[in-house]
Amino acid sequence: MYRIGVDLGGTNIVVGLVDQDMKICDTKSCKTNLPRSAEAIVADIGMLCKEIMKQNRLELSDIASVGVGVPGTANQETGIIEYANNLGFDMVPFVDMLKKHINLPIYMDNDANAAAWGEYKAGKYDSDSFVMVTLGTGVGGGVVVGGKLVRGCNYAAGELGHTTIDFNGVPCNCGRTGCFEAYGSATALIQQTKAALTAATDADTVLWELCDNDISKIEAKHVFDAVAKKDELGLKLLDNYTTYLAEGLANIINIFQPAVLTIGGGVSKAGDTLLNPVREKTAKLIYSRNAKVNTKIIAAKYDNDAGIIGAALLEA
Amino acid sequence: MYRIGVDLGGTNIVVGLVDQDMKICDTKSCKTNLPRSAEAIVADIGMLCKEIMKQNRLELSDIASVGVGVPGTANQETGIIEYANNLGFDMVPFVDMLKKHINLPIYMDNDANAAAWGEYKAGKYDSDSFVMVTLGTGVGGGVVVGGKLVRGCNYAAGELGHTTIDFNGVPCNCGRTGCFEAYGSATALIQQTKAALTAATDADTVLWELCDNDISKIEAKHVFDAVAKKDELGLKLLDNYTTYLAEGLANIINIFQPAVLTIGGGVSKAGDTLLNPVREKTAKLIYSRNAKVNTKIIAAKYDNDAGIIGAALLEA
Repeated sequence: MYRIGVDLGGTNIVVGLVDQDMKICDTKSCKTNLPRSAEAIVADIGMLCKEIMKQNRLELSDIASVGVGVPGTANQETGIIEYANNLGFDMVPFVDMLKKHINLPIYMDNDANAAAWGEYKAGKYDSDSFVMVTLGTGVGGGVVVGGKLVRGCNYAAGELGHTTIDFNGVPCNCGRTGCFEAYGSATALIQQTKAALTAATDADTVLWELCDNDISKIEAKHVFDAVAKKDELGLKLLDNYTTYLAEGLANIINIFQPAVLTIGGGVSKAGDTLLNPVREKTAKLIYSRNAKVNTKIIAAKYDNDAGIIGAALLEA
Repeated sequence: MYRIGVDLGGTNIVVGLVDQDMKICDTKSCKTNLPRSAEAIVADIGMLCKEIMKQNRLELSDIASVGVGVPGTANQETGIIEYANNLGFDMVPFVDMLKKHINLPIYMDNDANAAAWGEYKAGKYDSDSFVMVTLGTGVGGGVVVGGKLVRGCNYAAGELGHTTIDFNGVPCNCGRTGCFEAYGSATALIQQTKAALTAATDADTVLWELCDNDISKIEAKHVFDAVAKKDELGLKLLDNYTTYLAEGLANIINIFQPAVLTIGGGVSKAGDTLLNPVREKTAKLIYSRNAKVNTKIIAAKYDNDAGIIGAALLEA
């Protein structure tokens, strides 16, 4: 038996065939081509599902379900995507629409939740309390309590990035001030680096070389490259960034005390260069300093795949 | 059938008899008299349980269970109170010890969790996602997800007050900077009021009258009394305080999106004077501004009773 997982993004629609070992064995994709009608987008999802089945010589009876990760608020009970800003969706009866193209059980959830679910299930963490924090363009999150995703009364729970850690601080895209996302995302690290270089244009740092003397070309990766070369400014930027991360993560731990907290997203590829200072600083901030057991902070095992695997593994 | 709920505090031990309608029908109490051995404290709890049963002509067979709210980390699985700073408890095998005095099923949980559980169960909120925030000496909390308390891997979850909302801000007792507790507790409101009066000793405000011209006598209640008289400084203090509360509550809502969030503690007695500005400000900060359903923020129905009722209603 197989399951199909769909990553419905603002740029691409990716459909993955997931086997019983929770591995992706095939994918098909197309451009989302926004702005487009919900009907046209749903038709493409149905078409990609049929194509991937055909290509793998599978019948409807070989597929247990189709799960979709949505960049917005997906109401499991009604089957309606209530709101998805990037897609221009407002109260779209998504499940009914997709069922007309492919008559299988259809599940959906927010894309960050789907990714956390994929990491949790496929990662086989031996615990029913689990948090994933993804450091990318923004700071995303998903929380598992009692072996189930925390969805809240309106399927909008788990916005871990949109919790202020400094209400007098840096403005956030969401309209608030000082959100964890505004300090802890890869975007924030890039901004912090650009600001440091702008403030000290005569600084003796390899970061100039790494960005070809063009501040606009700075990437998050450059900071870790600079750290590898023991560059002073790079080390300082990493120190600040991990301090911010520790503040946000300590908040999450004090609330959930999950057995495992995984860090995903591009920045997490820096591994222990990032995670060791984060672990040290977080340990000093958590309220459970005296507890016999504390949250393990580790790098996520799955990356881009987690969203598709998690979508495929969604259940009622 | 009855249940017994125990509030094991640093000052008093209160034992309550709770009936099938989740009402307290009798209580007995004694001083905790710290410092004392765990044995002596447990013996007192056993004695109070027996006394309350005798006084109400009840046998062991009339009591379903004894539940205890503990000011610390109570491991349900092992029956050990792992750490309770105020009581001087470190790895106390509490359940086994109490069972020798009263041979009934014995459950325990952190006292803030027990209070949230009592409010949730006896308050009969029609939802399985629920948060209680208690604004008192500190800011306490308890969270229900999927109809169960969120306890975490070490039974230390739910420290909603110890989440920073300004990591450059006011120091907190827990060792961190800018915790919600340092801005949102009744203690914090008193400090904010004292600071305002100290900074403007010539201010034309009824707060001077309310505290008998003695800043050390300021209570949280005085601020609400001043607001009732449309006192300018009182209104400004309430405006600041509700701004802080909204930041902390918006964080909690963005994480859990509970159907109901109740505010307990002495400050909540101010009712809509406090809650209306909190609701308005929180609504502007939450990420789910466009959701069809949002968290209801209301005053807690039970107050001091919630801890005993919740302890009595604890289950395996």
